[in-house]
Amino acid sequence: MSSIDLSKIQSGDRRALSQAITLVESSKKDHRLQAEELLSKIHIGKRDTKRIAISGVPGVGKSTFIETLGEMLIAKGHKVAVLAIDPTSPKSGGSILGDKTRMEKLSQNQKAFIRPSPTKTTLGGVASKTRETIFLCEEAGYDIILIETVGVGQSEHLVSSMVDMFIVLMLPGAGDELQGIKRGILELADTAIVNKADGDNKISAELAAKQYENAFHIIGRDSFWQQNVMTCSALKNEGMEDVIKNIENYFVESIKCKNFLEQRSEQLVTWFDLDFKQKIENYIREDKKIAKYIANSHDLIKNGKKSVLQASSELISKLKVD
Amino acid sequence: MSSIDLSKIQSGDRRALSQAITLVESSKKDHRLQAEELLSKIHIGKRDTKRIAISGVPGVGKSTFIETLGEMLIAKGHKVAVLAIDPTSPKSGGSILGDKTRMEKLSQNQKAFIRPSPTKTTLGGVASKTRETIFLCEEAGYDIILIETVGVGQSEHLVSSMVDMFIVLMLPGAGDELQGIKRGILELADTAIVNKADGDNKISAELAAKQYENAFHIIGRDSFWQQNVMTCSALKNEGMEDVIKNIENYFVESIKCKNFLEQRSEQLVTWFDLDFKQKIENYIREDKKIAKYIANSHDLIKNGKKSVLQASSELISKLKVD
Repeated sequence: MSSIDLSKIQSGDRRALSQAITLVESSKKDHRLQAEELLSKIHIGKRDTKRIAISGVPGVGKSTFIETLGEMLIAKGHKVAVLAIDPTSPKSGGSILGDKTRMEKLSQNQKAFIRPSPTKTTLGGVASKTRETIFLCEEAGYDIILIETVGVGQSEHLVSSMVDMFIVLMLPGAGDELQGIKRGILELADTAIVNKADGDNKISAELAAKQYENAFHIIGRDSFWQQNVMTCSALKNEGMEDVIKNIENYFVESIKCKNFLEQRSEQLVTWFDLDFKQKIENYIREDKKIAKYIANSHDLIKNGKKSVLQASSELISKLKVD
Repeated sequence: MSSIDLSKIQSGDRRALSQAITLVESSKKDHRLQAEELLSKIHIGKRDTKRIAISGVPGVGKSTFIETLGEMLIAKGHKVAVLAIDPTSPKSGGSILGDKTRMEKLSQNQKAFIRPSPTKTTLGGVASKTRETIFLCEEAGYDIILIETVGVGQSEHLVSSMVDMFIVLMLPGAGDELQGIKRGILELADTAIVNKADGDNKISAELAAKQYENAFHIIGRDSFWQQNVMTCSALKNEGMEDVIKNIENYFVESIKCKNFLEQRSEQLVTWFDLDFKQKIENYIREDKKIAKYIANSHDLIKNGKKSVLQASSELISKLKVD
């Protein structure tokens, strides 16, 4: 990979942006150093952009919702980047039974940039570069960043540490157990939106909305923003204007009470904590002495000549702080 | 927490076992050292036990399946431990809308030990002590360990590195998108079981089974064991004898072709890799010089006086290998 021209990214060259993201996602040492240099040159953190997570279980209609929302936002003059995080495929990525072309219309819009989740992810590495990807998209002029995520698991928590606003999509009527909705996810949500509220589903959507309102009431989160619930049909484009108004309200409030900048500062601290852990992991993996010790330990453990706990304790004793 | 009496665990004292697991799950430094000492004394790895993951999305009937399976295994003379891993609640744990008493009958059986997932989990910490908990349960005489897990996300991959056999439960008929079944999960599965195959569901269960058989065919995993598909109704106790026969066959084959011991050796190596990473994290967190540097960096980052990447690079430069 040749080095990336920052001015090309800034001028809106989509290919340069794509290449920069690929560079940032790479785990190769020289790529990492190049990515670090690139990122050190761009403006990070306190921009006038909106970072919004769209979360929800598979089948809730995230793609359709994002496509409709994205087109409406573009019609209002925004540039929209969509990043997808999929924690469900650690091994080879992608679903085997349900692959579809997604967000076909939006992906052809020149004001939109869609980046699917990386196919190679390591344990703990899911979404580890999404934060950096957000910064790159902002540098390329995208002022609204939508992060699509599957709504289950730890990755939601990580995603919430990257965005200004967290939206959870829900299915009408379906019991919470089927939806896999857990308290943890509801706690993160600034707004819950019951999607597919059309036709016969309208009544059950209203019922579900009531349920989630109650749930928010029980949670009673301490925040500048009262967690709220809406219904919509992204497919039929019903209720979507209200969804956008709600997003705008959220940001008006968030900026007014200074939550916006405070949260972004806090998120930089979270990034630091994650970044140095990642750097320590890289260091451990790449140091030749340690690599040799690890390989040796693997052999001894496999042959039953050393216990796991003894080997790991010995390794740790080799580490020193200057 | 007072120190744990290993002989009590070995004699089957359930309270001592519970306390030991709590100790192992604790992130406090002195607890960790005690846990390490305890674990260093027990026999780890190559035991004559069966470790089986039961995975599947919420609503697929994992609890009922495990309850029925557990009681049948106990009737055959086994002692069964059930460990639950729930990666969906990073913040406060537990579902807010759907809490039910689970596995009520099995939990009252003296030959069963049920341990729910820890309520406090950290990012990356999910299931991080499940492995150690398996060892403790085995030391307490449980010869079949069932690990219940939600079937989405990275945790499945981690769980597969702790068990001998990986079972995925499926719903009849429901499209794969609704079920959130991804190629990654199917690749891990030794057996897929379509549950709730009773009454009107029987036909759609058979259809789903055919689908998963095709999926396994496409995957074409290279293994001693041909991935297979079954149907059952855990609630009506239909097809469960075949499920048990299938498990027995799996272990007969696995032991015969030496996969069983090889896999357990490999899993010890995986444990070592995870354990020393965890130890490095602990070390970083607990070293006073580093803690001071981190606190200082947090301030500088929040005030915009130092960039995240610069701060993390400087921290890493302080680390030395002996």
